[in-house]
Amino acid sequence: MRYIETFKEKETITGIYFCKQKATALSKTGKEYASIVLQDKTGNVDGKIWNLGSAGIREFDEKNYVYIRAEVTVFNGALQLNISEVRVAEEGTYNESDYLPTSSKDIEEMYRELIGSLKKVSNPHLQALNKMFFVDDVKFVKEFKRHSAAKRVHHGFVGGLLEHTLGVVKLCETIADRYSYLNRDLLITAAAFHDIGKVYELSDFPDNDYTDAGQLLGHIVMGCELIGNAVKELPGFPKVLERQLKHCIVAHHGEFEYGSPKKPALAEALALHYADDLDAKLETFKEAISTPVGQSGEWVEFNKMLDSNIRKTII
Amino acid sequence: MRYIETFKEKETITGIYFCKQKATALSKTGKEYASIVLQDKTGNVDGKIWNLGSAGIREFDEKNYVYIRAEVTVFNGALQLNISEVRVAEEGTYNESDYLPTSSKDIEEMYRELIGSLKKVSNPHLQALNKMFFVDDVKFVKEFKRHSAAKRVHHGFVGGLLEHTLGVVKLCETIADRYSYLNRDLLITAAAFHDIGKVYELSDFPDNDYTDAGQLLGHIVMGCELIGNAVKELPGFPKVLERQLKHCIVAHHGEFEYGSPKKPALAEALALHYADDLDAKLETFKEAISTPVGQSGEWVEFNKMLDSNIRKTII
Amino acid sequence: MRYIETFKEKETITGIYFCKQKATALSKTGKEYASIVLQDKTGNVDGKIWNLGSAGIREFDEKNYVYIRAEVTVFNGALQLNISEVRVAEEGTYNESDYLPTSSKDIEEMYRELIGSLKKVSNPHLQALNKMFFVDDVKFVKEFKRHSAAKRVHHGFVGGLLEHTLGVVKLCETIADRYSYLNRDLLITAAAFHDIGKVYELSDFPDNDYTDAGQLLGHIVMGCELIGNAVKELPGFPKVLERQLKHCIVAHHGEFEYGSPKKPALAEALALHYADDLDAKLETFKEAISTPVGQSGEWVEFNKMLDSNIRKTII
Amino acid sequence: MRYIETFKEKETITGIYFCKQKATALSKTGKEYASIVLQDKTGNVDGKIWNLGSAGIREFDEKNYVYIRAEVTVFNGALQLNISEVRVAEEGTYNESDYLPTSSKDIEEMYRELIGSLKKVSNPHLQALNKMFFVDDVKFVKEFKRHSAAKRVHHGFVGGLLEHTLGVVKLCETIADRYSYLNRDLLITAAAFHDIGKVYELSDFPDNDYTDAGQLLGHIVMGCELIGNAVKELPGFPKVLERQLKHCIVAHHGEFEYGSPKKPALAEALALHYADDLDAKLETFKEAISTPVGQSGEWVEFNKMLDSNIRKTII
Amino acid sequence: MRYIETFKEKETITGIYFCKQKATALSKTGKEYASIVLQDKTGNVDGKIWNLGSAGIREFDEKNYVYIRAEVTVFNGALQLNISEVRVAEEGTYNESDYLPTSSKDIEEMYRELIGSLKKVSNPHLQALNKMFFVDDVKFVKEFKRHSAAKRVHHGFVGGLLEHTLGVVKLCETIADRYSYLNRDLLITAAAFHDIGKVYELSDFPDNDYTDAGQLLGHIVMGCELIGNAVKELPGFPKVLERQLKHCIVAHHGEFEYGSPKKPALAEALALHYADDLDAKLETFKEAISTPVGQSGEWVEFNKMLDSNIRKTII
Amino acid sequence: MRYIETFKEKETITGIYFCKQKATALSKTGKEYASIVLQDKTGNVDGKIWNLGSAGIREFDEKNYVYIRAEVTVFNGALQLNISEVRVAEEGTYNESDYLPTSSKDIEEMYRELIGSLKKVSNPHLQALNKMFFVDDVKFVKEFKRHSAAKRVHHGFVGGLLEHTLGVVKLCETIADRYSYLNRDLLITAAAFHDIGKVYELSDFPDNDYTDAGQLLGHIVMGCELIGNAVKELPGFPKVLERQLKHCIVAHHGEFEYGSPKKPALAEALALHYADDLDAKLETFKEAISTPVGQSGEWVEFNKMLDSNIRKTII
Repeated sequence: MRYIETFKEKETITGIYFCKQKATALSKTGKEYASIVLQDKTGNVDGKIWNLGSAGIREFDEKNYVYIRAEVTVFNGALQLNISEVRVAEEGTYNESDYLPTSSKDIEEMYRELIGSLKKVSNPHLQALNKMFFVDDVKFVKEFKRHSAAKRVHHGFVGGLLEHTLGVVKLCETIADRYSYLNRDLLITAAAFHDIGKVYELSDFPDNDYTDAGQLLGHIVMGCELIGNAVKELPGFPKVLERQLKHCIVAHHGEFEYGSPKKPALAEALALHYADDLDAKLETFKEAISTPVGQSGEWVEFNKMLDSNIRKTII
Repeated sequence: MRYIETFKEKETITGIYFCKQKATALSKTGKEYASIVLQDKTGNVDGKIWNLGSAGIREFDEKNYVYIRAEVTVFNGALQLNISEVRVAEEGTYNESDYLPTSSKDIEEMYRELIGSLKKVSNPHLQALNKMFFVDDVKFVKEFKRHSAAKRVHHGFVGGLLEHTLGVVKLCETIADRYSYLNRDLLITAAAFHDIGKVYELSDFPDNDYTDAGQLLGHIVMGCELIGNAVKELPGFPKVLERQLKHCIVAHHGEFEYGSPKKPALAEALALHYADDLDAKLETFKEAISTPVGQSGEWVEFNKMLDSNIRKTII
Repeated sequence: MRYIETFKEKETITGIYFCKQKATALSKTGKEYASIVLQDKTGNVDGKIWNLGSAGIREFDEKNYVYIRAEVTVFNGALQLNISEVRVAEEGTYNESDYLPTSSKDIEEMYRELIGSLKKVSNPHLQALNKMFFVDDVKFVKEFKRHSAAKRVHHGFVGGLLEHTLGVVKLCETIADRYSYLNRDLLITAAAFHDIGKVYELSDFPDNDYTDAGQLLGHIVMGCELIGNAVKELPGFPKVLERQLKHCIVAHHGEFEYGSPKKPALAEALALHYADDLDAKLETFKEAISTPVGQSGEWVEFNKMLDSNIRKTII
Repeated sequence: MRYIETFKEKETITGIYFCKQKATALSKTGKEYASIVLQDKTGNVDGKIWNLGSAGIREFDEKNYVYIRAEVTVFNGALQLNISEVRVAEEGTYNESDYLPTSSKDIEEMYRELIGSLKKVSNPHLQALNKMFFVDDVKFVKEFKRHSAAKRVHHGFVGGLLEHTLGVVKLCETIADRYSYLNRDLLITAAAFHDIGKVYELSDFPDNDYTDAGQLLGHIVMGCELIGNAVKELPGFPKVLERQLKHCIVAHHGEFEYGSPKKPALAEALALHYADDLDAKLETFKEAISTPVGQSGEWVEFNKMLDSNIRKTII
Repeated sequence: MRYIETFKEKETITGIYFCKQKATALSKTGKEYASIVLQDKTGNVDGKIWNLGSAGIREFDEKNYVYIRAEVTVFNGALQLNISEVRVAEEGTYNESDYLPTSSKDIEEMYRELIGSLKKVSNPHLQALNKMFFVDDVKFVKEFKRHSAAKRVHHGFVGGLLEHTLGVVKLCETIADRYSYLNRDLLITAAAFHDIGKVYELSDFPDNDYTDAGQLLGHIVMGCELIGNAVKELPGFPKVLERQLKHCIVAHHGEFEYGSPKKPALAEALALHYADDLDAKLETFKEAISTPVGQSGEWVEFNKMLDSNIRKTII
Repeated sequence: MRYIETFKEKETITGIYFCKQKATALSKTGKEYASIVLQDKTGNVDGKIWNLGSAGIREFDEKNYVYIRAEVTVFNGALQLNISEVRVAEEGTYNESDYLPTSSKDIEEMYRELIGSLKKVSNPHLQALNKMFFVDDVKFVKEFKRHSAAKRVHHGFVGGLLEHTLGVVKLCETIADRYSYLNRDLLITAAAFHDIGKVYELSDFPDNDYTDAGQLLGHIVMGCELIGNAVKELPGFPKVLERQLKHCIVAHHGEFEYGSPKKPALAEALALHYADDLDAKLETFKEAISTPVGQSGEWVEFNKMLDSNIRKTII
């Protein structure tokens, strides 16, 4: 298939793309036209259907996969498609993975590894809570496996939330081993739950965008609420344990300026914050140096998240 | 009664004080002694009971009002009481208001004024929510009326939470009148609920200190949870309305650095933030210039909350 | 009339626009051409007159309203007009309000409301000062009514300074009512005067740009000077009152980083700062959600002034 | 004479000190006593006169030089004088310089050097302005020579304002020589005027404290106003020159956070800022390493103004 | 032995302490006296020898262990010893470990563990460098084992530098295992070398204070120089490898504001920064909650390094 | 010659330019093409050679001066050359100074002035060090004279490093004269050496870009190392003098956030910081107001380095 990032002015494109947005508007002459956004895993492009009544233009909706024929033009410095044909693509004629960035790791294997780590949690209350979410709630598990950990930035792909969560859990296991004064069960459980709010902060793929609730409340507050509601169904769950687990969620961004309403006040919250940040930053770094840099030398331009020019290590 | 802030070295004090803390320890010679903290509305003082077995020392517990006889000494530059007599004070022999700072306004009148404002909320869902907390929940109402809005800083007295909440509600009424694009019902309700988490973030008077949950989660997260749990019992409460109300709570500190995990994204959240901040700062200012300043001139020394030297206006 | 924000590449435009800037330059071939900027209330556009000697090109000056005929082209990604005809437009053939953004409120009515508030100031010195500026100084009143409160950002339209000033005065009235320890006369007068420096910090419409003095000194220092000069003509005006009024002007941005050389040290200065900021931010919010957002959903993109994504409230 | 910084507990002190503050109060037994603050050039000490009616206690006022006899006691960890005798000291029996920190340089010589620099200003308008303040206004010159440049921090002594101003002027002369695109006349005049507001921001010695106007407006706004008023009396003084000179005053702190309402927008304002900061910081450094450091090694403890531990250079 | 932190006013102390500082001064009556600072592993105390000529006072020097007899007094709110006898203590009569805070872990075992990790470095150049410092340089190894990682803050005890270095190396091993795109040899070597400059930034125990070079240059610049000098003696050490290793040292504080002149630009530098910070913060947390907190509840007061109130986790 | 900044769409360009970068790539049709960057002293432009095999295309390499013939096109809003002919230009047919921005001052004269200042350093050790670098090391002197002081920002031209260094040395001479407690020899030597690391932090002209070492270590660490290595060859150079000189280099950016790992702790380091900053900022200002501003008025748009709008002074 022809990927959007390779489109060039004046080409004719035919192929199937995911229709992310669709809207109609009136032109200056009073004629209705459609404005759509097409997406594949390499990016987005705007398209216009000027002649809605023409033969090639069939019914389709936002969030459909559509076959199109279009000319690539330039408008205000950006590429734009002039669409002459469009119709809903039949299932089986396209491969979803071409439209969604996806983890390079095996999702089921990562899930098994996560479950393996959670099984070692021996506190019965935390064990019950872990089972409730990560084993018994089939709908949650399905969404958790498929979600990204971010719209952009890092782990912004199918399986990204699972990959990031597993990375944090594994780091926390090492930390708990080495700093024995930490409570292992609390730390591992907090690691597993720290970003579960993201399942509802971001919409499903292929959309993968902030939801209304995500923008208004954020995954920290949403994650706390998920835990609070769950614990009500677990008789005998100690109040102080619930509060400590929520604190780890509340404080895991480490600083007010990164959206944590409390700074880490428990050692496990502090450790979780570092593990989360380390996994996120090392993935950000990896993604940044994986981008093809072209002929301009080995240094990657200034990376905003890492606040530095960076480059691959030479050995 | 003799207030703690007037104690001087070498005096003998007799009177009734609130015992805020009590603990026993071993002296270097292996003898047990008691270490206590006494409180009245003007401050705290440490006390030691070196001879626990002597005749004047009777049974008493932390959080009792106690009659004491003691010498005022100085230890490490601070006053300390050497207690020779102590016993639980009989009810009726002391006046609770001597031990608790209290609002200068009438609590019941403020409460009526608040209810009056809430009755004007016409959205039926918000009306039901307001009634559930501020009218029907007798236990909550009792605690809400008695609570402070802070340990120190501003409104740190009995009735302070009500006084501050009412101040914010009244400001929001004016704002809603003047900026007509705002949703009045949402704004007034958010104003009433913005600090309800403080009922559980701070313990009751005379203690008035941060609770464990208050330190770990804070009143923003706790307030959201209270609303979330209540809404579950109100059939038909719109999801988006719940979310918007919670957002006003979440964002009311206005900035990440003041502990809001989200910045105001709705106009009502923005207005609430300003009303909250204005009421708090004008009360802080009033308290600061009410402190007797002595003979050093009309300027009050640097005020940390207001980040400036300040003075009363001269007319 | 055809508004500038609706221009599209390759169109031919005929109509009257305000000529904001005009300059001549030499092309590479040594031929003189003119470079102008045209404005209406929806925006600006650059224009070039390549053939100054042709028949359609008549005399005109910067700050004239001009009739033009032109082709819309694109240069370096921005629209540009290729002008083939231009002449000064006759008065009466255009409507100034098409070229100037204007308050949606009635200017005379707002002015009467402001005067009404000022009449309630009972301190004779402040009363005299208010009258001197807002009633007796006809030239000042005319400019004050017509000015914007900003080049961009908020209230950037004819009548904007009056609308903002009135908003702040009305908020301060409520605040003075509710926080009775404040000095009402000082607060209302300070509210009326807080931005008068803007009359000279920004040039008149349709230009509405920073003046040289505005850039070098700013409206805070300029406003202080205006008050200082006026008070010299008011016998018996108390020194300390002048100083306190000036302090309210000096401190009304609230923070050093927003250009106030002093932080609020009087309660009235603090109250004024909040009223000013609240009115400005609620207007900024209103303007931002009034912008047509298109088909991409209800959220407005990141707003720099408000430092957040924002959206209209849904009820 | 016995300096205050050498007082020790239990000593008896007799001698003459400057009475900075005086107030009377009631003791707990209802008896009137006096509370005073004594000062010499090494510091301040509190004193109490418990027996106002005793023979040794004569009439005296705040701001008098007084002879006292007193015991040194300790109260709340600070030294305090128990005064048994006090009377106004006769002129001639004390040396004002013992009570005022004074510049180590000759004031008249510094003044001549300053005048010498100002005479080289050739712009007739600036020349006239310089003469008006620094030559013709005898009262101003007297106060300018005697003033400090600060309450504490740096140049906090008699002649300090002159010494600092001269230091800045001389640095600006070098800078103007070396960076020839700068306007020498504007830069030198701005350097001479940059801190003149301090003559009224700080009270005269021996008080040397912030005035009410100083706290409310600050020396930047006050300096601008002084220039504005003076220029009115200089016919033909160009508006743009006045504005540029004022801008140099307005921007000389260099950053909003240091109280400049504008950042330097002219090269002369930028140069002035650096010269001012450099002279202030090098004097701060000199004063800090001149303090006797004792036996704890050559490093001086953390200096807050310089934000570092510092030490004398070893050669 | 009687530890300094248990001293109380009016006690008589006899015992051996480390003399950290010694100086002589003149009293007001012109008599010479000595001022010393005594230290054990629990703290410091000032002492005065008023009567230098008395029989009990023998010769001794700074940095000696001395036997003393003294009365505990209070001066300016702090304890002070009035020393009547002092003499150099004979070796064998005191135990150095009573005077030095020491790691709770076995130093030789930690060293073996570190060497074990370094042996797994397979790059021959890095292997040679590791061997040069951590095996062959006997003097360096001895100092490295004995040094602290800080004057205060965390790991401020004998063996602290080794304990911290080992902690960082072990974390980096895990990180290298999990994030396979990292260069393991570079990361482990950088972890071992990251704080070697501290061997010269801080003086040896029992002094453990900043050296002159430490204050002027800091351990980052000093560590780079140590590596640069060593590499000169290792033929064929690749330039780019040296530069990358130094970069890891240079950037390991992660932010300019913590004294790194460069931000991490290599993934190994980023990983090292997190491992260093995590080990330091978890040790800081552990030390803070190990401090006996007394009867005021389980929360530890505000911890400046962690920027929060903290408490032990309750399970 | 035709400068790059004057290129316009659709022109045909013939002339000689410096080839800064060159790379080959495959087009979508699998055909190889070349992508190059051409440079002259006014800027850069991308060029494409689509038909590598055509007659006009000869052999050439990166860093060659090349003669080209090309059409100017626009791609993604930027100019791009469509190159039809290219060959290596013969020496003598172009003037290097057209391709390199160069100091407006005479390099040899500036060098003589610098040497003159260094000769006045009387400390024999510092004298020897100065001679070693600035006189005896012919290769260093040649590079030092030719280097810029920055890639962009200020003094970004041939001779810029020398011009900036001389400016700082001359300012330091004045400062040493006026603040006599400073050590003149140390200050002047530190001024001469403060940026020598830039000789290796930036590559030679015409490239003038950050080197790998420059990005990883920076000129502060590199400058320290250069001094450290040199001092080893100067017998008897005092340790403390070396350390103090290095400290001046280490601290000369003045703040952590500008990349100094230490704040100035010696007065000479503080003075050097101000002299460096002043020279850099006044040059930045000069360059900014030298840029032709066009017809939009005398104000220059917001300058990021100076953090302000700026303008030329009007006299």
